[in-house]
Amino acid sequence: MDGLEVLPVRGIGDVTPGDDLAALITANAPWLRDGDVLVVTSKIVSKAEGRLVEVPADGPEREEARERALLAETRRVVARRGPTAIVQTHHGFVMAAAGIDASNVDKTHLVLLPADPDASARALRDALIERGLRVGVIVSDTMGRAWRNGLTDVALGAAGIEPLRDHRGEIDPYGNELQLTQMAVIDELAGAGELVKGKSDQVPVAVVRGYPGAGAEQGAGAVALLRDAASDMFSLGTAEARAAGLRTAATLPDSADAEAPHAADSAAIGRALTTVAESLAAGTTVETKSPGVLRCTPQDVTAAGLMRFGADVHRLRAALTAEALSSTVTYDASTAVLTVARA
Amino acid sequence: MDGLEVLPVRGIGDVTPGDDLAALITANAPWLRDGDVLVVTSKIVSKAEGRLVEVPADGPEREEARERALLAETRRVVARRGPTAIVQTHHGFVMAAAGIDASNVDKTHLVLLPADPDASARALRDALIERGLRVGVIVSDTMGRAWRNGLTDVALGAAGIEPLRDHRGEIDPYGNELQLTQMAVIDELAGAGELVKGKSDQVPVAVVRGYPGAGAEQGAGAVALLRDAASDMFSLGTAEARAAGLRTAATLPDSADAEAPHAADSAAIGRALTTVAESLAAGTTVETKSPGVLRCTPQDVTAAGLMRFGADVHRLRAALTAEALSSTVTYDASTAVLTVARA
Repeated sequence: MDGLEVLPVRGIGDVTPGDDLAALITANAPWLRDGDVLVVTSKIVSKAEGRLVEVPADGPEREEARERALLAETRRVVARRGPTAIVQTHHGFVMAAAGIDASNVDKTHLVLLPADPDASARALRDALIERGLRVGVIVSDTMGRAWRNGLTDVALGAAGIEPLRDHRGEIDPYGNELQLTQMAVIDELAGAGELVKGKSDQVPVAVVRGYPGAGAEQGAGAVALLRDAASDMFSLGTAEARAAGLRTAATLPDSADAEAPHAADSAAIGRALTTVAESLAAGTTVETKSPGVLRCTPQDVTAAGLMRFGADVHRLRAALTAEALSSTVTYDASTAVLTVARA
Repeated sequence: MDGLEVLPVRGIGDVTPGDDLAALITANAPWLRDGDVLVVTSKIVSKAEGRLVEVPADGPEREEARERALLAETRRVVARRGPTAIVQTHHGFVMAAAGIDASNVDKTHLVLLPADPDASARALRDALIERGLRVGVIVSDTMGRAWRNGLTDVALGAAGIEPLRDHRGEIDPYGNELQLTQMAVIDELAGAGELVKGKSDQVPVAVVRGYPGAGAEQGAGAVALLRDAASDMFSLGTAEARAAGLRTAATLPDSADAEAPHAADSAAIGRALTTVAESLAAGTTVETKSPGVLRCTPQDVTAAGLMRFGADVHRLRAALTAEALSSTVTYDASTAVLTVARA
């Protein structure tokens, strides 16, 4: 590989609904060639597509209008802290404020994300093909990250470039086969493009020249980079998920879901018992009657003692749930019996 | 800005402990100049520094040795799913397998992260200054991200380049003052460098030319990009945090921590009552005696009924805890009284 160039496209200026982005870009970058990758800031795509919402220029009504816009764009809240809301948009992107932007637009409007950034990328690529240019197009936006300060630009949409570069199966110089290595190259290209743009709207398009294979095929789109819920280990913020765990304890029914067909392993039950060991009232005992069947007996059988015992049994059931064990409780005149299983 | 070039440095080959990286780099990139930014794969830094651990080439002992190495490098487990462990290293990086790498090294070794990547970057920068070159140095590695598939290279260490580019206070063309915009440029530079490297060890160093201001000052280091715990909304995986919430319910003591000085707001108490509404036994009542004081009374006062009532009171306390309210419970012969406050 001989290296890349990352070039700013200057002169585009203000973009308004209905503008022809392909025309604006080719007018200001007549030097574009086949194989180039355009990194187009999503904001000008949104503006050209009319993805704007009108709001009051100031006052408390402005804040209310922003909240309504955020609600409309949000599929699911992921995490909140103070004024910061990280949400999943309807597209599936996880971003602060659903990507709604008040900068680089007049005060009576907010800019929403494009409705379908991959479609926007494809449309722009097709328009450029009509103008005789076979390029890749990335629609980029600025995002924060978990665990790391600062923001980077990533790809919301892509066409004419594969989103991932896959090294699985390659053999390194030591004879090891590479395994878990899929590079999100459209995100790296978006970040590279950002390095030559400013944030005051003067350079909304960058061109990366020299990336092999760009422009040739349509590609899978940036949607390939969105984790599905099953493989997303961070679908809720930590505080939100802790609260959800507490609410699970709060709503644990007496009878477990019937769908718990596997025997509980004694190691997991042991961990749950260890969790509550210091919390149970003195004299309360838990015996294993048989695998998965625990009999709990209080020492203090006054009314208050029985109430406290009931709370202890619920503590134990919460601890079992934390170990992914479900339980059914039955109370009688002197004991509570838990039947424990694993879903 | 005139744009950037991203250039591969070829020919470096195998790196072994004690190697002089500055010498290797200048020998293979005699064209380096002041103001360039070197993006150096952390693996060759680790190899030169001897950050390797010996392991069996195969067999179950190899897996055990890998587990021991992971344990030693881990400050805290963030999330697990199956064989994948996302951990925080002692440096503070959140990475799969603590960044330990079995690729691009002979089978009897694993490569650990550099002990102090910012120090490694500074040392390399200083060694290049002695050779008459004033450059920026980024020590890069490959990381996964929450919510997005694929990996990107980011900066573990940096010298001679500021980690963040801050736009706060700038005025856009519409007169808006930009606020929350700090770009993590050393991560974007690391990603740009990765685009000209392969993954089979042939190009461990890239050079980014044309980035303004590089090389001049030492800079704050990549440590500036590590979120502190207080501002990290994703310090635990969702499953781990849910389990932690359940364990909080399991170990909730009868008496709240004394440090809960603020009155509970009735809206939050109302939300907690709504959470448990469907879960409480028929006939169990909760009255507000006075602000923050709830009296709970069972209808069924048999032994079994009192046990069930105690569990219900604990359900309510878990729901209150989910609303960030602490509570103290006192039981008497016929009721349980909760005193609720906000920490």
